[in-house]
Amino acid sequence: MTFTSLLRTAWAQQNSLLTLGLDPDLNRLPEALKGSATGVYDFCTGMVDACAPYVSAFKPQFAYFASIKAEDQLERICAYIKQHHPHLPIIMDSKRGDIGSTARHYALEAFERYGADAITVSPYMGHDSVEPYFEWKDKGVIVLCRTSNPGGSDLQFLQVDGMPLYLHVAKLVAEQWNAHTGQCALVVGATFPDEIAKVRAVVGDLPLLVPGIGAQGGDIPATVNAGLDSQGAGMMINSSRAILYASAGNDWQDAAARVAKQTRDAINAAR
Amino acid sequence: MTFTSLLRTAWAQQNSLLTLGLDPDLNRLPEALKGSATGVYDFCTGMVDACAPYVSAFKPQFAYFASIKAEDQLERICAYIKQHHPHLPIIMDSKRGDIGSTARHYALEAFERYGADAITVSPYMGHDSVEPYFEWKDKGVIVLCRTSNPGGSDLQFLQVDGMPLYLHVAKLVAEQWNAHTGQCALVVGATFPDEIAKVRAVVGDLPLLVPGIGAQGGDIPATVNAGLDSQGAGMMINSSRAILYASAGNDWQDAAARVAKQTRDAINAAR
Repeated sequence: MTFTSLLRTAWAQQNSLLTLGLDPDLNRLPEALKGSATGVYDFCTGMVDACAPYVSAFKPQFAYFASIKAEDQLERICAYIKQHHPHLPIIMDSKRGDIGSTARHYALEAFERYGADAITVSPYMGHDSVEPYFEWKDKGVIVLCRTSNPGGSDLQFLQVDGMPLYLHVAKLVAEQWNAHTGQCALVVGATFPDEIAKVRAVVGDLPLLVPGIGAQGGDIPATVNAGLDSQGAGMMINSSRAILYASAGNDWQDAAARVAKQTRDAINAAR
Repeated sequence: MTFTSLLRTAWAQQNSLLTLGLDPDLNRLPEALKGSATGVYDFCTGMVDACAPYVSAFKPQFAYFASIKAEDQLERICAYIKQHHPHLPIIMDSKRGDIGSTARHYALEAFERYGADAITVSPYMGHDSVEPYFEWKDKGVIVLCRTSNPGGSDLQFLQVDGMPLYLHVAKLVAEQWNAHTGQCALVVGATFPDEIAKVRAVVGDLPLLVPGIGAQGGDIPATVNAGLDSQGAGMMINSSRAILYASAGNDWQDAAARVAKQTRDAINAAR
């Protein structure tokens, strides 16, 4: 099954466009897990189980594991998801970008080592920096387009032939990289709903990964209105910290599940 | 000591602008090291010792370690360099790029976990995706500008206000990000010497990391002529595979040292 098929099935079966970002911050773990050698694993798998009814994908943020030498726990978290929630795709958010021979090693890391279903990548180094990922025909490649952070405009809003760079990237990915493979998606931040709409207008039903709701402050109804595809889906709307750190007490799983359900419902109310 | 000071001292003391890239490919290790559990560590530290007389920096390519679960060996390699060759900077080539809260975790990874002196980053997400690295005042931030791969032109050659995007990035980094910190450098590939010259013309004496000689085919005299700074230095000219894989026989260290010396000499002959 292709990544897009896996994703569309998950959107429909789960009746949810919510992606749960897994950004385990040691300083914010539940009190009961702080200091445990397997705290990150226990926290993430606990979050996965608690939120699985309300989400359609999981997105581990690689940096949070790399900074604390927790690659082994990340491997086990991905294996846990594959075993217990095989219908929910794993998006490895590592924003890779390098020359082809190196990109092949990043593909091995994401798809073989971690068993991810998709990876986020940067477009800055162009087509041969993404081609190696396409050799895994069942995997997805999610390309940065318009990011949700304040500095996103520094490059992405530069005008190229009367069109901002991010729209140029959107067209490049949709019309070339995805046209040849069917494996692409785009990252478009929720902090700019008008720009989600502009991207949607030029990429057809290409899936969009939309970070920026929750802790980053993006508006859910505006985001949903701007980004739905022709089938009333089309978005992986990510929330990480607002769900993960809903409570540090003994109710950490219940609190996270409650926020995940509220977020899913708020998204669905706007569809 | 700042990264730039460390680098300038190494250029002068070593009389070398050569950076050795550490890209350990399990399939190409010396026969004597193949199959060893510490083969990557033994290979990289053996290369470091053999080539140390001829180089002014080491550049581990993160992907080659990540694809084979060798982060622990990478930690030990970096510690070995710090212990035995403390005057030679370590550049962690991981081309990171993410929002500020995430970038901080990548900074912790590169600077605290691995003890790197500098990190490569992508400019696509803008200023707040690089700011967290600057909190480590003694560390360097090397920003992708013009890359050596065929797809590099896809975005980098787009025209923005009559100037290709890569020159826009060069000016942004030199005039803003570096002006505030003094911690920046740029990646400019050796496969385009004319473009190295154009970058040099707009960035003053900002250090340039120049991959693309050796296996990627860049021309050494043209590269050197294009990129020297006003002090006759200014470049980290990287070679990885041509040195690392000069021989898979028992002479692997001698062969690598010979190619490293030849490459250093070829660079110096053009200065």
